[in-house]
Amino acid sequence: MQLFDWIAEILRSDAGRSGPETGSTRFVPPPPDVDPLTGRDRFGWGFDDTEFRVTDDGTVKLTGDRYDISGVEMPKLLPWLQDVMGISVDPSDPATPTQDPEIPPPRPAPELMSSLESVLDPDRMTQDDAARLDHGHGQTQQEIYQINHGDGFERVPDLVAYPETAEEVERIVALADQHDAVLIPFGGGTNVTEALRCDPDEDRFIVSVDMRLMNRIEWIDPVNRTAKIQAGAIGRHIEAQLAEYGFTMGHEPDSIEFSTIGGWVATHASGMKKNRYGNIEDIVLDVDVVTPSGRLEKRGLHPRVSTGFDPTSCLFGSEGTLGIITAVTVKLFPEPAVRRYGSVIFPSLQNGVDFLYDLAQTRHVPASVRLMDNTQFHFGQALKPEKTGLDALKSRLETVYVTRLKGYDPDTLVTATLLFEGDEQEVDLQEETVYELANEHGGMRAGSENGRRGYDLTFAIAYIRDLVFRHRLLAESFETAVPWGQAHELIERVKERTHREHEAHDLPGRPFITGRITQVYETGVCIYFYMAMYHEGVDRPDEVYKEVEHGIREEILDAGGSLSHHHGVGKLRADFMDDIASAPTLAAKNELKDAIDPNGVFDTGNQGLGTSR
Amino acid sequence: MQLFDWIAEILRSDAGRSGPETGSTRFVPPPPDVDPLTGRDRFGWGFDDTEFRVTDDGTVKLTGDRYDISGVEMPKLLPWLQDVMGISVDPSDPATPTQDPEIPPPRPAPELMSSLESVLDPDRMTQDDAARLDHGHGQTQQEIYQINHGDGFERVPDLVAYPETAEEVERIVALADQHDAVLIPFGGGTNVTEALRCDPDEDRFIVSVDMRLMNRIEWIDPVNRTAKIQAGAIGRHIEAQLAEYGFTMGHEPDSIEFSTIGGWVATHASGMKKNRYGNIEDIVLDVDVVTPSGRLEKRGLHPRVSTGFDPTSCLFGSEGTLGIITAVTVKLFPEPAVRRYGSVIFPSLQNGVDFLYDLAQTRHVPASVRLMDNTQFHFGQALKPEKTGLDALKSRLETVYVTRLKGYDPDTLVTATLLFEGDEQEVDLQEETVYELANEHGGMRAGSENGRRGYDLTFAIAYIRDLVFRHRLLAESFETAVPWGQAHELIERVKERTHREHEAHDLPGRPFITGRITQVYETGVCIYFYMAMYHEGVDRPDEVYKEVEHGIREEILDAGGSLSHHHGVGKLRADFMDDIASAPTLAAKNELKDAIDPNGVFDTGNQGLGTSR
Repeated sequence: MQLFDWIAEILRSDAGRSGPETGSTRFVPPPPDVDPLTGRDRFGWGFDDTEFRVTDDGTVKLTGDRYDISGVEMPKLLPWLQDVMGISVDPSDPATPTQDPEIPPPRPAPELMSSLESVLDPDRMTQDDAARLDHGHGQTQQEIYQINHGDGFERVPDLVAYPETAEEVERIVALADQHDAVLIPFGGGTNVTEALRCDPDEDRFIVSVDMRLMNRIEWIDPVNRTAKIQAGAIGRHIEAQLAEYGFTMGHEPDSIEFSTIGGWVATHASGMKKNRYGNIEDIVLDVDVVTPSGRLEKRGLHPRVSTGFDPTSCLFGSEGTLGIITAVTVKLFPEPAVRRYGSVIFPSLQNGVDFLYDLAQTRHVPASVRLMDNTQFHFGQALKPEKTGLDALKSRLETVYVTRLKGYDPDTLVTATLLFEGDEQEVDLQEETVYELANEHGGMRAGSENGRRGYDLTFAIAYIRDLVFRHRLLAESFETAVPWGQAHELIERVKERTHREHEAHDLPGRPFITGRITQVYETGVCIYFYMAMYHEGVDRPDEVYKEVEHGIREEILDAGGSLSHHHGVGKLRADFMDDIASAPTLAAKNELKDAIDPNGVFDTGNQGLGTSR
Repeated sequence: MQLFDWIAEILRSDAGRSGPETGSTRFVPPPPDVDPLTGRDRFGWGFDDTEFRVTDDGTVKLTGDRYDISGVEMPKLLPWLQDVMGISVDPSDPATPTQDPEIPPPRPAPELMSSLESVLDPDRMTQDDAARLDHGHGQTQQEIYQINHGDGFERVPDLVAYPETAEEVERIVALADQHDAVLIPFGGGTNVTEALRCDPDEDRFIVSVDMRLMNRIEWIDPVNRTAKIQAGAIGRHIEAQLAEYGFTMGHEPDSIEFSTIGGWVATHASGMKKNRYGNIEDIVLDVDVVTPSGRLEKRGLHPRVSTGFDPTSCLFGSEGTLGIITAVTVKLFPEPAVRRYGSVIFPSLQNGVDFLYDLAQTRHVPASVRLMDNTQFHFGQALKPEKTGLDALKSRLETVYVTRLKGYDPDTLVTATLLFEGDEQEVDLQEETVYELANEHGGMRAGSENGRRGYDLTFAIAYIRDLVFRHRLLAESFETAVPWGQAHELIERVKERTHREHEAHDLPGRPFITGRITQVYETGVCIYFYMAMYHEGVDRPDEVYKEVEHGIREEILDAGGSLSHHHGVGKLRADFMDDIASAPTLAAKNELKDAIDPNGVFDTGNQGLGTSR
């Protein structure tokens, strides 16, 4: 059979030889040669070798060499930010981080502990303070502020466990159920909804179940283009290993360097290349999960079925409330033959939105298209190095060309970055469509280098939050989904509301608020905002920030936006659940949770779910 | 705002003027000018003006003028069928239909009846025998056999109710809950899983809730490309009305002439143009449903959210077990600029499958591509008229060209029909890809007329079942989804098993069994089979047929196929549920049902769900 030629070829190759064939069309790749537990920054975002540092003269530089902008001197960033926010930051006077918060001691649970010791090797269980703190939070501004500049947490996990097999997970779940303990599944730790935070009022023993040792690709089926991947595998490792066989999952959330495939399901993640590969729910074919009621399993792996409600579908966005995801079976895509970047400048946000709208109605949307507002355009400029000599001249000439000759107003123009992936013909057609439509909406091509830079900046820019934290700014992102017809108004309302909240909370200077449209759908868009506020002299600024953000979320809901597009609900937005769903809807959700988890092992308050809530 | 220009234009047009604008971007179209309750054949499939008739000399003709093949004399069909099946049918001796089966009288429920009378006008409730019989079945072979040649049903609904508003539905559901009655939602009556059949042991009063009077498009939002459509609206009416505004839902199940949008959700339907528009779950954005616990509602209409489990998602494939769907909000697509048909001949099924596989890995799959096996190719030929004169010569020359010059073996060749929809460039690229790949797999273009004919035959061919019924053949279709790597073997195994079952049941002649691949996915396909058996001299042939089909389904599951791709489970396949899902999975399903419908108002045995099962 011709379609088996390809697997035969792979199985004959070195890659194939490393593992036995487990079925007619599956092979087992070797375990990844990575240490999934190291390299993360303990006190903020990202790799521990990378952070933005600021010299006394205010020049900013990203350490390490992981990113495009690593090592680049950025003298314009701080001045620009101060200008936008109407504040004055003394770079030589950073806030002194606490970095040594009180960590509550683990609660005693001798029986459970001794039972767990029969399941896990001693080196895969720890009650070490630092490990418990690390596992007791995600990456919200408040969590990071509390660790670095606040009092830490009233409650963190009492134990961190590192299972290596689904059977171990099964035994852990059974023991927790039996001993009335709480389990919090832990993946990359990149959650931004306080889903990992422990309820201070939780009296039960809390175990953080760190899944990162379960990081193998169990099998790849090159014929049926599927793979089963253990839940703790980290995005960048998955993609690196799949690439060895010419495949990709195509899922690229901003957090791909750290987040895990199990976390993607539990968070209902969305990837930057959604337009070509789909969101996580489009890529996933099956989820293996251990719940207190057992495993929710089904027979076979089918492209599509009509057999009624499938409870594993509830795992998308479940935020750890139903069980522990142990493996995820996904579609694979051949790595695209062509990958090109692009960018376009538009005179105004409105032109850009109109362009996106027209583009989204075609079948030629690139893998990624993102539209940055004017503030974000300038933000990007501020991250550039000071140019000298010919470069400076070129840069000035470009600016003159864009603003004088082409008549783009630097105070209103916006940019779109584009990533095209696919076969040659597909990408050609997409490029043709994009640039033709851009032209119709007053847009101008701004080059592939700007596009690539804008796309890659996603990963480096995430470190900025920790830089500004040290200089008394709190910063955070939030997002929503909204129908096309309400998109532009929602952006305006969010900006206005941010200013109103900022004023109402009597905060110094002006708020920093910027938005970009990161995803397009036929019927609407995802809008992703960054907000920052200066808090010199403000008491409990993390709480103030939260209040401001809560007000903005009200505005978003009133403006037709959703509670979340892909970040989730967690504890951060749980109090909005009543506003977005009818009582019978919430009751049905709760009853399903109770059916699956009758003793509330996974009842941590996320989405307000659980009997004890 | 530029994207509102278009709605402004529509609102200025006659179409727009007919209804008030209900929101900034929505308008209300006029009610459809149709009678949704008439025109259906009472005793079998389809329109009452259309049926296959056979003359004494064995020539077959389809009455009426609805279809391409209406009025065409088909002398080859019966001889071919007899040849394939090794049987001898006397066209002048049809089986005498009963057509007057015993209909059990309605049970008394005076209190409920009098309460219902306060909700519904008298002309929207009936206990008429014929109406109750009509609403007590779908279109399985057994149901149609029982009506026409058997004893009818032990149990049919006691009342048929025709609500006109969601509020009426709400009151009906509340009354049923209060009075311990059973409700069976009824749409187009095209169900093929016995989901509409009444349990003979059901002692409670059964109300069939016919939704077809709720057939309005509540609004169209041309900017956000969405529409809210009442659940009882019939496919062909929806498409006709949307077309007035230049839109389509793109959903085209084989039953589109009769099935309703509510039924599509409840059955988890798949449309022939899935590749371009998606299956029903891809098209639907929200579902309005009335359950005994209330309405499962959410706020806003968003392209995508991450807010955890959404109970309305359980309605896909719910088969009437959770409540009554009252409206469905869907995506709209502009009607495609280009629609072209095509067809290809391949030397063998294997070549055809390999072609499909390669095609499915590209991004250039046409709206519909279906691959018919050799039997189905000959079946299509047998449905053609006898050609005379030049036509006959041309036909013979074509045959000579294909079989002699091109070397295709008439006993192994297979055909694919293609429907391309989209913009000019999209379709050009699809055509180019399809024919290039076809060529690589030994295929030969067979013209757009054959493609169009093959596509349209879908609708007319559905009437054949009732023709052969009259001549002592039972016929039925069934389907499955299977990974690519197992597709070819599954087809072979189904054919072998059919022959084994046929022999084991000592049936006369040979079975008729033919398959086609009707849907392609990245990871697998949907395979759709037709089976027929001759039952001259066989006792309770409908039961025998069911046993044979049950055996084949076992084979399908063993061969890696799913229980269903789009027909559903209903009662027909409920006893397989234990085989396809783990006990905790089934328990979770059941608990969710109980949470939503604690008194079992919608507990009719479908999927084995409900407390009383």
